[in-house]
Amino acid sequence: MYTTLPPTGMRDFLPREKEIREYVMREIRDEYKRSGFTEIETSFIENIENLTGGDGAENTKLIFKIMMRGDKLTKTFEKSKEADELAEYGLRFDLTLPLVRFYANNRNDLPTIFKALQMGTVFRAERAQKGRYRAFAQCDIDVIGDESNLAEIEIIQTISSTLKRLEFENFTIKINDRRILKAIVIASGFSEDDFSDIAITLDKLDKVGIDGIKSELLSKSYLEANVIKLIETSNHLAEFGLDGIKALSLEGYENISQIMSVITALEDGFKIEFDHTLVRGMGYYTSTIFEITYGDLGYSVAGGGRYDKMIGKISGIDVPAVGFSIGFERIVDLLLSENKMANTDVKIALLYDETQSLLDVIKKAMELRQSYAVVSLYKLKKKLGKQLVQLDKAGYDGFSIYGDEIIVKSFDQAE
Amino acid sequence: MYTTLPPTGMRDFLPREKEIREYVMREIRDEYKRSGFTEIETSFIENIENLTGGDGAENTKLIFKIMMRGDKLTKTFEKSKEADELAEYGLRFDLTLPLVRFYANNRNDLPTIFKALQMGTVFRAERAQKGRYRAFAQCDIDVIGDESNLAEIEIIQTISSTLKRLEFENFTIKINDRRILKAIVIASGFSEDDFSDIAITLDKLDKVGIDGIKSELLSKSYLEANVIKLIETSNHLAEFGLDGIKALSLEGYENISQIMSVITALEDGFKIEFDHTLVRGMGYYTSTIFEITYGDLGYSVAGGGRYDKMIGKISGIDVPAVGFSIGFERIVDLLLSENKMANTDVKIALLYDETQSLLDVIKKAMELRQSYAVVSLYKLKKKLGKQLVQLDKAGYDGFSIYGDEIIVKSFDQAE
Repeated sequence: MYTTLPPTGMRDFLPREKEIREYVMREIRDEYKRSGFTEIETSFIENIENLTGGDGAENTKLIFKIMMRGDKLTKTFEKSKEADELAEYGLRFDLTLPLVRFYANNRNDLPTIFKALQMGTVFRAERAQKGRYRAFAQCDIDVIGDESNLAEIEIIQTISSTLKRLEFENFTIKINDRRILKAIVIASGFSEDDFSDIAITLDKLDKVGIDGIKSELLSKSYLEANVIKLIETSNHLAEFGLDGIKALSLEGYENISQIMSVITALEDGFKIEFDHTLVRGMGYYTSTIFEITYGDLGYSVAGGGRYDKMIGKISGIDVPAVGFSIGFERIVDLLLSENKMANTDVKIALLYDETQSLLDVIKKAMELRQSYAVVSLYKLKKKLGKQLVQLDKAGYDGFSIYGDEIIVKSFDQAE
Repeated sequence: MYTTLPPTGMRDFLPREKEIREYVMREIRDEYKRSGFTEIETSFIENIENLTGGDGAENTKLIFKIMMRGDKLTKTFEKSKEADELAEYGLRFDLTLPLVRFYANNRNDLPTIFKALQMGTVFRAERAQKGRYRAFAQCDIDVIGDESNLAEIEIIQTISSTLKRLEFENFTIKINDRRILKAIVIASGFSEDDFSDIAITLDKLDKVGIDGIKSELLSKSYLEANVIKLIETSNHLAEFGLDGIKALSLEGYENISQIMSVITALEDGFKIEFDHTLVRGMGYYTSTIFEITYGDLGYSVAGGGRYDKMIGKISGIDVPAVGFSIGFERIVDLLLSENKMANTDVKIALLYDETQSLLDVIKKAMELRQSYAVVSLYKLKKKLGKQLVQLDKAGYDGFSIYGDEIIVKSFDQAE
């Protein structure tokens, strides 16, 4: 049955929404490029085995699967026991997995230290609910091939410039190191093998609080003594901050304190805070992790971390990497709610009546385009007042009636 | 099995390719917007019935189909007789069908005359071969709601400005009217019902020549007398041009001659030619059709036409519309082959050694970004010569060694 709505969880964007999205994309792209990030584009469609086989964790359950075609489909269907056997491709669910494949494929044509920028739509078949979309844009930057934390510092400085360019000023960078988290867990008596599982629980701190963490760990049958020690260590660190970590993880301490001292000294107008409770979900992070919160919002608008082992898993050769992703949809929502978009382009409607020479009218429009950003032609309607209201609503800043002496009037002047 | 290549017919884009694609997108977008076209975005994914039910002709055979999920998939699979029953969604194969759905859905929020711009990737499961891709970008502009040929004139003028902005100058616009084609067919003795079928054959003129047309029409069992008359009429028109059509189709004649006289008088540096053999494939065109050829290329780089009945088929209310699509991939190929991309951004690499203060180096980079478009940090390598060769290859225009007095050297100066 034909329907005029887009499919569940998918969106169309009207001109006003699209203008803001495009503006944000362009500002982010331009600012990232200024710091030497070069843009690439990867395929929307991946072979299904690439998507299901990797480190995608929960996301692998959310793949939109694309069917085989033709004879292959018919033959597979005849002998298939499960519908999933008919899937040949899938839509990408993030930009990291395609980037790693891209890098493995093109490494010889890329610089030793490759600073990549990617912007594009990703697809996840999430349960449909208000404010949750099944197709959304991501903006990622990654530094591949630099084992030093200059990579982290550059990424943080670049994202900071970008947020400032978009006129966000009240943001905070939270930073931690997976090695610090691991040291805390081990110092509390847990085994190293339990770290990943415990990290999954710790990641829920914002949602369930310290009591929730405690009861979940106990329900997973961890020793109560260890759980209590973990909470004590955490409280101790909350009191003593980064200095408290020196004895537990010297490399974590040195990494984080170096990043923080440079970023703080840049005095670029934002706060950077060590947060030993920061976990971030993805299993592939190996050391630095960071995220950005804005104002009093309860959620992060951007985040990332270092994943030094992921490329090696695919290509056989370990290559250090740090990645960072901006929550594009959240940035757009914030701009919409705060009405921050700076658009100084003047849009003019040039009105004419049918008795006038179309050629002369078009020439006039082309001439006006030397002075105004947008000049659009419309036939004069009988009810000029109504037409002007519509043009105002459509975002025009003024109008000109062809043949009149006054070239451009604002809508206020017209009243 | 994991593979580092993108799927068959899909592409990744390296920085240099992506830069050109992004440059072309931006130039086209900016120039279209200057003429009052407003950008929208439609969903990549459509309900499968919307894609298979419409006017898509051959394209409906090329849909990438997305499978149902969860319980729905399991239940449907158990009782399904054909694999196709498992498809719930599909990837869009053009931007016109989603635009028509979008318009039907949002009409009340759009201006009476809606000038739409859309740029995005479409997907067609074409047989894989060199130079043919299964995912490619399209750039469409459409004027919806204007029954006058100002719509055609504005579209042609805008596309002309755009091609000139991209520094293409040697292009020709070919124009025809479906009503003229139909009048020729009927005047040759065929019935009106045969028009669509005959048009499909006539569309092959470029490939098979006049003899090929003749034999195909005869093989379809049309009367030889009519076929001969059709060729005579065509020869007659080739001799007398647009004037020859006046008696056959006055409305076609008036439409085309008005468009041609305005476009010619604009003297905007390109040729417009009446071509009574122009057909263009899509069945939905109702009157004006046009396409653009560049230089001596044997193919069109852009094309479009008026489709006044398509929106009515969906929404029940006829709304006049004209659309135009640029063959984005061809434009990019041309720019690559002619090396036309004008990029004046100066890219600088700032080199430093590890003994220097990272903070000071980053401050210097931020300072240099006031003067240069791109400033990227790199650690000095032991083999400076080799490093400079790599930077040159990566597209940098010059470099600066932190602490040196000379701020920026071109690679020539360094030799």
